[in-house]
Amino acid sequence: MDHTIIQKEIEFALQNKKNPQHLFDLVHSLRPYDISEVLRELSLEEQLDLISKLPIVLAAESLEYLEPEVQYHILRHLKDSIASPLLKQMSSDAVVDMLLAIHPLQAQRLLDLLPEDYRDKINQLMTYPEYTAGSLMTVDYIAARAYWNGEQTLSHIRKVGHEAEIVSYIYVTDIRGELVGVCSLKEIILARPDTRLGEIAIQDIITVPADMEQEEVANILSRYDFYALPVVDQQNRLKGIITVDDVVDVIQEEATEDFQKMGGSSPLSEPYFKTSTWELFRKRIIWLLVLFIGGAYTANVLEKFSDTLSKIVELSFFIPLLTGTGGNTASQIVTTLVRALGMGEVTFKDIFRVIRKEIITGCLLGLSLGFIMYIRAVLMGVQTNVGWVVSISILIIVLWSSLVSAILPLILHRLKVDPAVVSNPLITTLVDGTGLIIYFTTAKLLLHL
Amino acid sequence: MDHTIIQKEIEFALQNKKNPQHLFDLVHSLRPYDISEVLRELSLEEQLDLISKLPIVLAAESLEYLEPEVQYHILRHLKDSIASPLLKQMSSDAVVDMLLAIHPLQAQRLLDLLPEDYRDKINQLMTYPEYTAGSLMTVDYIAARAYWNGEQTLSHIRKVGHEAEIVSYIYVTDIRGELVGVCSLKEIILARPDTRLGEIAIQDIITVPADMEQEEVANILSRYDFYALPVVDQQNRLKGIITVDDVVDVIQEEATEDFQKMGGSSPLSEPYFKTSTWELFRKRIIWLLVLFIGGAYTANVLEKFSDTLSKIVELSFFIPLLTGTGGNTASQIVTTLVRALGMGEVTFKDIFRVIRKEIITGCLLGLSLGFIMYIRAVLMGVQTNVGWVVSISILIIVLWSSLVSAILPLILHRLKVDPAVVSNPLITTLVDGTGLIIYFTTAKLLLHL
Repeated sequence: MDHTIIQKEIEFALQNKKNPQHLFDLVHSLRPYDISEVLRELSLEEQLDLISKLPIVLAAESLEYLEPEVQYHILRHLKDSIASPLLKQMSSDAVVDMLLAIHPLQAQRLLDLLPEDYRDKINQLMTYPEYTAGSLMTVDYIAARAYWNGEQTLSHIRKVGHEAEIVSYIYVTDIRGELVGVCSLKEIILARPDTRLGEIAIQDIITVPADMEQEEVANILSRYDFYALPVVDQQNRLKGIITVDDVVDVIQEEATEDFQKMGGSSPLSEPYFKTSTWELFRKRIIWLLVLFIGGAYTANVLEKFSDTLSKIVELSFFIPLLTGTGGNTASQIVTTLVRALGMGEVTFKDIFRVIRKEIITGCLLGLSLGFIMYIRAVLMGVQTNVGWVVSISILIIVLWSSLVSAILPLILHRLKVDPAVVSNPLITTLVDGTGLIIYFTTAKLLLHL
Repeated sequence: MDHTIIQKEIEFALQNKKNPQHLFDLVHSLRPYDISEVLRELSLEEQLDLISKLPIVLAAESLEYLEPEVQYHILRHLKDSIASPLLKQMSSDAVVDMLLAIHPLQAQRLLDLLPEDYRDKINQLMTYPEYTAGSLMTVDYIAARAYWNGEQTLSHIRKVGHEAEIVSYIYVTDIRGELVGVCSLKEIILARPDTRLGEIAIQDIITVPADMEQEEVANILSRYDFYALPVVDQQNRLKGIITVDDVVDVIQEEATEDFQKMGGSSPLSEPYFKTSTWELFRKRIIWLLVLFIGGAYTANVLEKFSDTLSKIVELSFFIPLLTGTGGNTASQIVTTLVRALGMGEVTFKDIFRVIRKEIITGCLLGLSLGFIMYIRAVLMGVQTNVGWVVSISILIIVLWSSLVSAILPLILHRLKVDPAVVSNPLITTLVDGTGLIIYFTTAKLLLHL
C-alpha cells in the first residue's frame, strides 16, 4: 500500500470542504495503521483537521500507532471536546505507554481530560513496572456475570463493546471482581440464547500475575494459542487482559534485543535508522571496551610464552586458526542455549544433561577438526611435531570451549541475569586466552621446550 | 500447571468406568494444550480410550499439539467411525502439516477417511511449498454474502462455526468466490440485526498471495495488529486464512533459526533436547569446516610475514587482541543489520545510508580503541613504535570491518540469500585474515622492515 498517494488524496479531500463525503469515502477503506502513516507526513493543522473528521474509533486506533510525543502534540492541540472522548476511546495500554513516555506535567494535562473513575484506572496501570504483564495489559475487556444468558451477554456487548479491545473472550467475574470463568464469544453464539454463561464458561482459567515478566507471558500465550490472557491480583481479581497483538510486538522486541545482545552490543531502543550515530557509538563502545579489557590478557599470555614463540616461530602461524575455532564452537553452543533458555525449552536443572550432550558433541567435533588440522599443518610443511601440537590442542580447546559455553548461560539464567549477555564476542574473547594457554602448554609438554 | 498430577487423575478416571462423569468433569476444565501434554505420557491404549471419550472439538484440538507421527499413530488405531469425523474436525493447516510429515502411504490411508470434497481441499493445500503463506493457511474460515444481514450471518455462524478456526472475522465473497469484503464479528454484533454485511464490511482488504514468504506474512499481520489475514489467488478468490497463533509460531521459529544461523550453525529443526547428539554434530561441523577452511589462510598470511614476526616477536602479542576487536565490531554490525533486514526496517536501497552511518560510527570507535590500545601497549613496555603500529592498525581494522559488515548482509539480501548466513563466526573469520594483513603491512611501513 503506497502511503504517499493516499496522503495526497487525503490532503486534497481535506481542502475540498464542500464535499465532506469524499474524505469519508477515502478513510472508510483505510485501516488505522495506514491512516497513522499518513498522519505522520501531515502538518499539525492537517493532522488536527483529519483527526477531528474521522469516526472516533478510527481516530483513536490510528493515534495509537504514532510516537508518544506526536500523540501528545495532537491531543494537546485538539479542542477538549474532541480530545477528551478520543483519549477515553484509546485503549488503556496505549494511553499508559504514551503518558509514561512524555513529561509528567504533560501527562497530568492529558489525565485531566479524563473522567475521574477512568483516570484512577489509568493512574493505577501506570504503576506497573516496564516489561511486566501489568505494563502490557488493558482494562478495556468485557466482563459478565455467570447468571447472564447468551442473549443478555450479547446485549451487554452491544452496549460496551465499542470500548473493548477484544470481544473474542468474555470474562465472568463475581460480585467481588474475582475471575470465575472465561467464555469465548464463539461459544456464546453457538449456544442456545438462553444458556447461562456459568454453564459454558471454562472455570479453570490460565491467568498471569501483574508482575510476571513479559517474556514469560509471551511463552504462555503462544503455547496455548490464546488471543488474550487475563491478569489477576493475589485475590484472583481481574485487573486487565493482555491481547495477542501486544504479545506479538513483545516477541519481536525481545528477539531483536537478544539478537543485538548476542552480537555484543547493548540493545538499541529504536529501529536502526532512528538511532543516531552517537547512540550507536555509545551502545557499542561499552561492550567493545569490556571485551578489549577482557581480551587484553591474551597479550600477556603470549608475552609469557615469548620464549617458546621465538624458538619456534611456526607456532604463531596457527594462533588465529586455533582461537578462531574455539570461538566458533563456543558461539554455536551459546546462541543455541540462550535461545532455548529464552523459549523455556531448557532450564538450570538440565545442566548435567546439557553438559553431557555438549561434551559428547565436542568430542566428535574436536576429533574431526584435529584430524583436519593435522593434515593442514603437514601440507604447510611444518615440523611433524608442530602438527601434533596443533592437532591435539584443537581437540582440547574445542572440549574446553564446549564446557564453558554449556555452563555459563545456564548459571547466568539461574542468577536471574539475562544469559544473552554471554554474547558471541564475549564467549569468543573468554575462550581466546584460555585457548592460547592450552596451545602453548601442549607445545611445551610435547616439544620439551 | 502440573501435568503429572492431571495425568494420574485422568488415568484413574479412565479405569473407573462406572463413573464416566468423573472423566468428563476432569477434562472439562482442561485446555487442549494440557490434554496434549497428558496424551504424550499415556500408553497407546489409554490414548485411544481418552481421545474417544473426549468431546470431538477438544479431541481434535488436543491432537493438533502432538507430533505428526503420534497423531498418525492415534488416528490409525482409532475406529474409522471415530477417526474420520476427528480428522475432519482438525484444522486443515494442522492436517496438512501432519500429512506432509508422515510417509505418503500413511498419508493416503488417512486421506481415505475424509469425504471427497474435503480431501480435494486438503490435497490442494498440500501443494503449497513450505514456509509460504499457502502452507500456513487454513480453509476453516467463515464466508458470507454481502446481501446477508446480521441475523442471517449469526445463524450461519451457528451452523458452520463449530468447524471454523476463528470467527472473529467473516469474509464476504461473491458468487465467483472473489473476496469483496471483511467484517469483524464485533461489528456484526454491534450493528442492528437487519444491517446487511455489504454496508459494514471493509472493502479495501489487505490480502496476501499464497506464495508470499511466511516472514513477510508475519510482518504484515503484526504491523496491522490483525487476528487473521486472508490469502487470495491472482483472481482475488479467497483460498484460505492465516491466523495469528500460527504467525506467532512463525515469528518464534524464524527468530530461533536466525539465532542459530548467527551463531554459526545450521538451524536445528527440533527443540534442543529433541535433537540428537549426532544431529547437533552434523549441523555444527558443516559450518565449522567452512570456517576452518576460510580461516586456514590466516596461517598463510602469518607464514608470509614470518620474517617480520621473527624480527619483532612483540608484534605477535597483539594478534588475538587485534583480530578479536575487528571481529567484535563486525559482529555488532552484522547482527543489527541482519535483524533489521528481517524486520523490513532496512532494504538494499539504503546501502549508502548504512555505509555512511557505519563508517562514521567506525571512526569514533576506531579512534577510541586506538587510543586505549596505545596506552595498553605502552603499559606493557613494548617499543613506542610498536605502540603506534597497533594503535593505527586497530583504527584501520575497525573501519575495514565496519565497511565489510555493512555491505555484505545487504548484498546477500539483494541476491535473495538469507543474510543470516553471514553469521558472527563467518564475519569474524573473514575479517581475521584481512586484519592480519592490515596489521603487518602497517608494521612494515612504519617500522621500515
